[in-house]
Amino acid sequence: MCDQLRWDYLSCSGHPTLKTPNIDALAAKGVRFTRAYVQSPVCGASRMSFYTGRYVQSHGAAWNGFPLRVGELTLGDYLRPLGVRTALVGKTHMRADVEGMRRLGIDPNSIIGVRVAECGFDPYERDDGLHGIGPDGRYDPQLPRYNRYLNEIGYGGDNPWHDWANAAAGAGDELASGWAMRNAAKPARVAEADAETPYMTRRAIDFMREAADAPWCLHLSYIKPHWPYIAPSPYHAMFSAGDMLPAVRSPGERTDPHPIYREFMNLKVSQAFSRDEVRATVIPVYMGLIKQIDDQLGVLFGFMRERGLFENTMIVFTSDHGDYLGDHWLGEKDLFHEPSVKVPLIVYDPSEQADAARGTACDALVEAIDLAPTFLEAVAGDWTQQSHRLEGRSLLPWLRAEGPSSWRQFAISEYNYASLPVAERLGVAPRDACLFMVTDRRWKLIHAPGFRPMLYDLASDPNELCDRGADGACEGQRQRLAEALASWGLRLSQRVTRSEHDIVAARGASERRGILIGVWDERELPDELGSRYRSKAVDS
Amino acid sequence: MCDQLRWDYLSCSGHPTLKTPNIDALAAKGVRFTRAYVQSPVCGASRMSFYTGRYVQSHGAAWNGFPLRVGELTLGDYLRPLGVRTALVGKTHMRADVEGMRRLGIDPNSIIGVRVAECGFDPYERDDGLHGIGPDGRYDPQLPRYNRYLNEIGYGGDNPWHDWANAAAGAGDELASGWAMRNAAKPARVAEADAETPYMTRRAIDFMREAADAPWCLHLSYIKPHWPYIAPSPYHAMFSAGDMLPAVRSPGERTDPHPIYREFMNLKVSQAFSRDEVRATVIPVYMGLIKQIDDQLGVLFGFMRERGLFENTMIVFTSDHGDYLGDHWLGEKDLFHEPSVKVPLIVYDPSEQADAARGTACDALVEAIDLAPTFLEAVAGDWTQQSHRLEGRSLLPWLRAEGPSSWRQFAISEYNYASLPVAERLGVAPRDACLFMVTDRRWKLIHAPGFRPMLYDLASDPNELCDRGADGACEGQRQRLAEALASWGLRLSQRVTRSEHDIVAARGASERRGILIGVWDERELPDELGSRYRSKAVDS
Repeated sequence: MCDQLRWDYLSCSGHPTLKTPNIDALAAKGVRFTRAYVQSPVCGASRMSFYTGRYVQSHGAAWNGFPLRVGELTLGDYLRPLGVRTALVGKTHMRADVEGMRRLGIDPNSIIGVRVAECGFDPYERDDGLHGIGPDGRYDPQLPRYNRYLNEIGYGGDNPWHDWANAAAGAGDELASGWAMRNAAKPARVAEADAETPYMTRRAIDFMREAADAPWCLHLSYIKPHWPYIAPSPYHAMFSAGDMLPAVRSPGERTDPHPIYREFMNLKVSQAFSRDEVRATVIPVYMGLIKQIDDQLGVLFGFMRERGLFENTMIVFTSDHGDYLGDHWLGEKDLFHEPSVKVPLIVYDPSEQADAARGTACDALVEAIDLAPTFLEAVAGDWTQQSHRLEGRSLLPWLRAEGPSSWRQFAISEYNYASLPVAERLGVAPRDACLFMVTDRRWKLIHAPGFRPMLYDLASDPNELCDRGADGACEGQRQRLAEALASWGLRLSQRVTRSEHDIVAARGASERRGILIGVWDERELPDELGSRYRSKAVDS
Repeated sequence: MCDQLRWDYLSCSGHPTLKTPNIDALAAKGVRFTRAYVQSPVCGASRMSFYTGRYVQSHGAAWNGFPLRVGELTLGDYLRPLGVRTALVGKTHMRADVEGMRRLGIDPNSIIGVRVAECGFDPYERDDGLHGIGPDGRYDPQLPRYNRYLNEIGYGGDNPWHDWANAAAGAGDELASGWAMRNAAKPARVAEADAETPYMTRRAIDFMREAADAPWCLHLSYIKPHWPYIAPSPYHAMFSAGDMLPAVRSPGERTDPHPIYREFMNLKVSQAFSRDEVRATVIPVYMGLIKQIDDQLGVLFGFMRERGLFENTMIVFTSDHGDYLGDHWLGEKDLFHEPSVKVPLIVYDPSEQADAARGTACDALVEAIDLAPTFLEAVAGDWTQQSHRLEGRSLLPWLRAEGPSSWRQFAISEYNYASLPVAERLGVAPRDACLFMVTDRRWKLIHAPGFRPMLYDLASDPNELCDRGADGACEGQRQRLAEALASWGLRLSQRVTRSEHDIVAARGASERRGILIGVWDERELPDELGSRYRSKAVDS
């Protein structure tokens, strides 16, 4: 998993100047899903959906730093009982539910406590990848092992993550921090081999070596190309402004926009990315960081090939969300235009049954929550015993056959803007600051409680430049999509302690345990039941 | 709390022949809510909503025997940290999430484990009140202390709950089991003082004595007038068929009914209660059981008055759902006609601020989930810090002032029919077998995914005899109520680890911890932030 990688910044998905041969090679061996949506275009919420296989409204960790409640099952909880070591190298953006753990008496230092606090993964090298320090202290209280590593090999200071990997040399003896985008074009002070992407790649290789022949599932989770936008040499200078895709935006988008969209355009990051200078400085570095990931995947895949791991290992390449990079006059992610909510998704399945589909693209509506059931089916042969918890669907039928007999007609994504100035400026209370996207194969509706909806027609307006949310001609489409969303909202998502199968199996069970409802005369009953109520009286 | 007590079987709510002076006296001292709805017209799901303050779709324990997931907070979790001993005498119908406890390493014998397994109550005398035994064994694996009590005072046998308290003397030396309704008119074999209602009343008094002056919250939860419909002398013969309310039903209801309603009418219990003989036999006994409860509440209130407890104790009288008793050609509960989904609710508040409203009736749309926030506000002075978990609203404004400044416009109730033959006969998969009621002050819509809705106009048709679900003239009402339900379905119910207040307080916090988003030049920032990024370079 990459972080903040747009779906279209790979050569296999059509980028004209950014060549990603290693990722392309994976696509040539697997299936590339061209309409893969994340459940929320923000790190924490999106990842919790990847891990739990559940919508954001279901797992509740609706934004960065909102703890994942104790008891939500994740990938490790599903795979570990099957004998699969499930581990993490890199980022999760998960906050542990410390209050819930305390309430339930779960020792954070116990094995269970550690897993609960680490999204169900066994810790191998967790590093959430953002180690800012400000006047109020550290953003991530965890000190990354990566910092120690840099210190050990000679990079000094308390926070070499920032001072070397995410800063360049400035004027005189000053640092040019990667946090300031004007510095993006400068090379990071760290040597390329010591940057985060190669480091995490080596840690993944360490893990695979150690894991040896026992089954495993590794979540290798790069922080890049997420900001701070700064790359080590030579990646910092590999691309120039001439290599960029043009900004997808139109002046019309700024004319009387939807109030929520307007407030997002007013954010500092959007104002910045609306300037050509910012795009021209940042995007080439963003591309360089992707190129570095591609090169490192080349290293990783080389190792895996050498060890014969391509014969028996499913490999998935994806991202937690995209990056507007100035498209639609926006920066960051958060909203639901394709550059934000759609992600690259390539699945390589080593099994023979997958041979027919190798190298193909699939435009089915696929969601991030589909991966957990996919892994479970790949390991266990079936995932539907967990269908009372997992809300996604296994992708194996798309990989191994002519596709499933039926598939979802709508994809859903959500965003909680309660933590942003947007909510404050619009006077929206935290609990009401929810956005919902529902898209079918053509239309995309954004439902914004308290406001009119937004609507895009991906057929006539593939760049999503024209919001039809108030267009009378589209009332039927709006209603159809709103109904699909309403029906989704009423789904059974919390009946997590009783499976479909259990319910069917339990029908009639209470009668066989002596609970008779609506019986007038016990002689109506089969003798095995009724005879019990004709027993002799017991005297006191 | 009573079990299966209809809202209209009390003299204070208008029953002409069933006199309940003790309950009426409570109503005269408190507020009687005339439109109080349960969150699900079935024991387990309804009670989990009372205890958690959350809708069924939120807590997920959608039917009897569906375990309440570990980590769902209940009344005890809210009150205990405030120094309030929160205990149970009687029924909960809660199934512990044993699998979840095991997964999280929670010892079922630890204090936390016991509370998790007992709905968050400290056990004092739990007795779920249904101790049937059939060919497959016991319905409730817990042996009630009540059985031991009966044995100790001389009632013999392995299951004196059944053989004495819920059976009469039959022909010769046979038992006449209370499970067979034809026996309802006979007196139970147990002496009145040893029946369940007086026993539990005494246990409540024991608790209050022991608790002494320390703050407490007691859930006294009678199993009656729930089936088995059988009462000890003299209550078995206190009422006759002439004392019954007439059946509320019309032949028109059987003509081309909604398919789900039809299947409920086809259930054995509905067929039975559609017969006059059954009503005439059972209802007088149902009334006797209520009369017994009223008498026992007289005993309890007498004790409380003696101890001065009326000065400082809030008392709530309610039920977990109603009983059709043949109305609408139905038995049991399950559907959403008023006899099933509406319950009695009387709240007595000892505080002086409540004096003005004493003896009044309130017709606001009130829900079972309102009680948990009511108790929390009564104890803590505020409940809104828990508004990210509690979905109800405190009733104190209705008790203590002229009412709240705003109140809900719709009440919601849900029912999961997956476990019933209804789902099987209609070919509905368990996950789709959900029903939703939404009612405003006049209309009541029942949304049934996969089927047309049902609709009742309580103004022109207060007895709900005419289903307008397919009436073209009501399209606007159906749409309006469906929209209210859709909006409810999209509520934020699982963001349980982060409060409204926390979110507002955390705005801007990450910038002060070194996370800068969209900054082009650090010199744009306030010096306290920006200066950190102009630090001297640290050499390796």
